[in-house]
Amino acid sequence: MSDPAKAAGTPRGRFITLEGGEGAGKSTQQKKLADWLSQKGVGVIETREPGGSPGAEQIRNLLVTGAAGRWDAMTETLLHFAARRDHVVATIEPALARGAWVVCDRFADSTMAYQGFGHQLGRPPVETLARLVLGGLKPDLTLMLDLPVEEGLDRARARNGGATEAEDRYESMEIAFHERLREGFHEIAAREPERCLLVDASGTAEVVSEKIQQAVVERFGAFLL
Amino acid sequence: MSDPAKAAGTPRGRFITLEGGEGAGKSTQQKKLADWLSQKGVGVIETREPGGSPGAEQIRNLLVTGAAGRWDAMTETLLHFAARRDHVVATIEPALARGAWVVCDRFADSTMAYQGFGHQLGRPPVETLARLVLGGLKPDLTLMLDLPVEEGLDRARARNGGATEAEDRYESMEIAFHERLREGFHEIAAREPERCLLVDASGTAEVVSEKIQQAVVERFGAFLL
Ligand SMILES: Nc1ncnc2c1ncn2[C@@H]1O[C@H](COP(=O)(O)OP(=O)(O)O)[C@@H](O)[C@H]1O
Ligand SMILES: Nc1ncnc2c1ncn2[C@@H]1O[C@H](COP(=O)(O)OP(=O)(O)O)[C@@H](O)[C@H]1O
Ligand SMILES: [Mg+2]
Ligand SMILES: [Mg+2]
Repeated sequence: MSDPAKAAGTPRGRFITLEGGEGAGKSTQQKKLADWLSQKGVGVIETREPGGSPGAEQIRNLLVTGAAGRWDAMTETLLHFAARRDHVVATIEPALARGAWVVCDRFADSTMAYQGFGHQLGRPPVETLARLVLGGLKPDLTLMLDLPVEEGLDRARARNGGATEAEDRYESMEIAFHERLREGFHEIAAREPERCLLVDASGTAEVVSEKIQQAVVERFGAFLL
Repeated sequence: MSDPAKAAGTPRGRFITLEGGEGAGKSTQQKKLADWLSQKGVGVIETREPGGSPGAEQIRNLLVTGAAGRWDAMTETLLHFAARRDHVVATIEPALARGAWVVCDRFADSTMAYQGFGHQLGRPPVETLARLVLGGLKPDLTLMLDLPVEEGLDRARARNGGATEAEDRYESMEIAFHERLREGFHEIAAREPERCLLVDASGTAEVVSEKIQQAVVERFGAFLL
């Protein structure tokens, strides 16, 4: 009775994540999805990882600055889960509890794909951490934007104007790394078909956006039409 | 054969940790033990947690600055293990591999005592993380400096000249917290009597130091006499 949202009977919000490799269109689609939901009258927050809360943004700084390879894959995984924990506690859970929908650019699947598959730490340690740290929290829907590796990297390079930014450190990794990422996302989607939807991200931003809206309606109801 | 230390038959160094509550005398005894070992001709490095490597020191900054309680116990635990992983990979393992002894002020038992017992996160998550992150590495000997809580806090306050320093945030916690810490260290020692030695830390620094030297000789051999 002390939680005002619960006392008023506000239903918990929905947690939607966008996943995929570099340049797949996550940030673009996040914005389109959040805008569309807002127009439908849904209270929505946009957030992203690593980061999304003051503490997590400080941890993000450790992850995206300094030499590539400064952390081994396990240390990097622990830092991502520390940031994620703070993000969940400070931003995501409070928003869901007050009934807002959360649209998040990257979440735990990125750690599985990048550290587990890309850096070959393997599936078990990342799964163990997710279970330990997230206390059962899973996205209600994960949109996995799927694109041939070269196409995504071309988009990302065009976005950056060819410059290498500190935060684009993954774009310079070997192609085999990006292929492992993509495989990782495919494997996650295959293992959790209820939660994950693999979205062909090769069309225009508008075409992809329509597919996503359709999937959200199918998952969460016709009140969005 | 590609490891020069192994090729030359250099035996692996010993890993000794000092644990205990605030003001128990860890830093004092670390220095005394390292000096004594050096005098006996043992190559030794002194290090401490959180920190002990450039990356881990940056994570330490996140842990010891900002408001107390800025991280929940799980996030704090993950940050400690991220720092510890980097410390092990960058500092401790290379030293042990080249035959140096490592004398470390705090290690994983502090996370169990502070986050597991003090902040009541519980034993299982900290144990799971230690297994996952440390790949089997355990100290060869852990000296647990045991002192009534009030005595340790008095020593720590006298050391700090009564000032509250950013890094002494634990000293201002309630007494019950410190009592749980002490209980935690006792329980760890009881569960791993082969590795852990509970040392009465209430004598003078010289008396405690002699007990420690004796324990080290008993554990690692008379060549130290
Ligand atoms: N469907 C699309 N077709 C072509 N270009 C796109 C598409 N979606 C996004 N882009 C462009 O590609 C670049 C990468 O998109 P972005 O949303 O930043 O990807 P991500 O966040 O997955 O790295 C941006 O310049 C963006 O404008
Ligand atoms: N055995 C001892 N008896 C009395 N004072 C001590 C003893 N050992 C250390 N001290 C003093 O107590 C304070 C805390 O010791 P320190 O080694 O910094 O403890 P810790 O590192 O465990 O917090 C310091 O001022 C130190 O000089
Ligand atoms: Mg993006
Ligand atoms: Mg000390």
